[in-house]
Amino acid sequence: MKFTCSKSDLLNGVSIVSKAVPTKTTMAILECILIDASSDNIKLTANNTELGIETVIEGNVIENGIVALDAKILYEMIRNLPDNDVTITTDQTFKTTIVCEKINYNIIGKSGEDFSYLPNIHKEEAVLMSQYTLKETIRQTIFSVSDNDNNKMMTGELFDLKGDKLRVISMDGYRVSIRNVNLSASYGDKKIIVPGKTLQELLKVISGDMDSEISIFFTKNHIVFEFDRTTVVSRIIEGNYFDIDRMLTDNYETKVRVNKKEILDSFNRTTPLIKENDKKPIVMNLTGNEMELKINSFAGSFDEEIDVSKEGNDIRIGFNPKFFIDALKVIEDEEISINMVNAKSPCFIKDDEGKFIYMVLPVSIVDE
Amino acid sequence: MKFTCSKSDLLNGVSIVSKAVPTKTTMAILECILIDASSDNIKLTANNTELGIETVIEGNVIENGIVALDAKILYEMIRNLPDNDVTITTDQTFKTTIVCEKINYNIIGKSGEDFSYLPNIHKEEAVLMSQYTLKETIRQTIFSVSDNDNNKMMTGELFDLKGDKLRVISMDGYRVSIRNVNLSASYGDKKIIVPGKTLQELLKVISGDMDSEISIFFTKNHIVFEFDRTTVVSRIIEGNYFDIDRMLTDNYETKVRVNKKEILDSFNRTTPLIKENDKKPIVMNLTGNEMELKINSFAGSFDEEIDVSKEGNDIRIGFNPKFFIDALKVIEDEEISINMVNAKSPCFIKDDEGKFIYMVLPVSIVDE
Repeated sequence: MKFTCSKSDLLNGVSIVSKAVPTKTTMAILECILIDASSDNIKLTANNTELGIETVIEGNVIENGIVALDAKILYEMIRNLPDNDVTITTDQTFKTTIVCEKINYNIIGKSGEDFSYLPNIHKEEAVLMSQYTLKETIRQTIFSVSDNDNNKMMTGELFDLKGDKLRVISMDGYRVSIRNVNLSASYGDKKIIVPGKTLQELLKVISGDMDSEISIFFTKNHIVFEFDRTTVVSRIIEGNYFDIDRMLTDNYETKVRVNKKEILDSFNRTTPLIKENDKKPIVMNLTGNEMELKINSFAGSFDEEIDVSKEGNDIRIGFNPKFFIDALKVIEDEEISINMVNAKSPCFIKDDEGKFIYMVLPVSIVDE
Repeated sequence: MKFTCSKSDLLNGVSIVSKAVPTKTTMAILECILIDASSDNIKLTANNTELGIETVIEGNVIENGIVALDAKILYEMIRNLPDNDVTITTDQTFKTTIVCEKINYNIIGKSGEDFSYLPNIHKEEAVLMSQYTLKETIRQTIFSVSDNDNNKMMTGELFDLKGDKLRVISMDGYRVSIRNVNLSASYGDKKIIVPGKTLQELLKVISGDMDSEISIFFTKNHIVFEFDRTTVVSRIIEGNYFDIDRMLTDNYETKVRVNKKEILDSFNRTTPLIKENDKKPIVMNLTGNEMELKINSFAGSFDEEIDVSKEGNDIRIGFNPKFFIDALKVIEDEEISINMVNAKSPCFIKDDEGKFIYMVLPVSIVDE
């Protein structure tokens, strides 16, 4: 095998597919990137059996061939090269030479015989959206995916497609994040649970560009993302996701409008008083048009008053401040609505357009 | 005690003295910052018995008093406050209230009775230099301080003052860093070993401003740095530092001039091939006006040729690349000289002005 390409294209490609290389594995071949120049294309692939990524880079194939190279070493080697053309050559024993200007690297590659290629997937309807929208949607929901394997479904996000509406949902047992996306076309109904880890890696490789499209394919066992010259294939999580609609309500007893930055700052101010072994709730006390936030821990106490505009009943309700902070941090809106039923029922953080709903369970307040 | 000051002054002061708060200690009082408003000044102090820092902040003292507050909680509380005036009040039981706009914090302070104040030091001659020069000098030597306590002296840096010359030296048994500073006045001869940890913290709090001065006092048991409204007092390391002059030579057999960035880039390119358990040397092969850098490890091999201008003998010499990288990274000069005697003697990296000398011991090359 022999080909030439630019250092920047190669680095970009290696960096993208590296996201599917497992950090720890006992199978040495999974730590490799397969470089496939068996046709006129230079195709890079990595696959950890849950998640596979493939990308095609520009270049000039001089001699066809295939080699598997250690992903980490390859990335570090390419990263340090000058911005110029790189030539990669492999002989029959998979000894690989990487040449750039006066620099020569030699490493031993593998045949790629036992490399697990991406599954050959029968793709039907492509759901289209901008990379920006998908990136925002993942960023605004991924934080409430459970990192605990006890309930496998909670480690993923539901992609719930109905006509021209996509609803993406994550939950960890204490809170639910819902992000609604309006699509520019209508599609058949589909429901699929995508592993959180897949979405975390996808977040790193999609561009966030409004003008770049991404195609999403929902299949029986996989979800496939196609963008630029890259394909991401992920297994899905089997099972029926929780029925979120049963948890939602519109019968709020208290509705509050508040400046997002003000309330986020106030929640952040409680963190110095919260210790690992002393997780006191923050008490939100709504009287008239004033919201008092108050916390009382072993380290000390904090209170602050914030002006809000309120409809409905006064209420006194307790929260784990982290859950509010996580949600408020990803919201871009200047003003938000906080809607509550009573001190024992979930609280709903919403925007006017119905783009997102963050549901947070309250914590009971033990009065001193 | 009661005083008012700006959030930014308070945060800056707390941040500076926090550098003397130990990360781990069994003495709770050492985790505190002493706030002393017993006169018209607001003085903050922290002291870990090796290193003490004191700073005075602007403010309006309304009621005199003293309180010791947990440094970490105090810093986190102040950091999150809005940019406005902060009022700190303490009652007889050292219950402390921090008020800013509509925000109230309450924490329990300590009397400060068992706080270890900075030692009262008899200061004589102040050695003056710019904060910029001191910052550069520390930055360019601190990396070769030993982090191993086996030889206490190597955990510090020698400050060697002779007339209007200050020489700052660090070494770890494999390399020596020397930084020469020309002072604008002459002083009595002094030699003192300053703990590396002190210098690391000092690096974080001095401004790096060419126009801001710092006064250094060398005393029998301490070194004192005074700048802006801050005093840093550190114990020194006792003992006679190594005789560096015996290690220096001018009888070089090979002198090379090389572009610093080119050779640093090349050394950096060897790192992908170096593993924790396979520390192969880099071989520097000088023939004519060409320098070949070559490494051969279990992971693979690397070589690169660099154009240099050379005087004297050809040489083939091995190095631990990390030691070259560490030194080259902190050098600002575009071109450097690499001077060698033979493959078994130290190599000297120097500039033209004689500002710095980095001495690196070679590694023997085991030929395959």
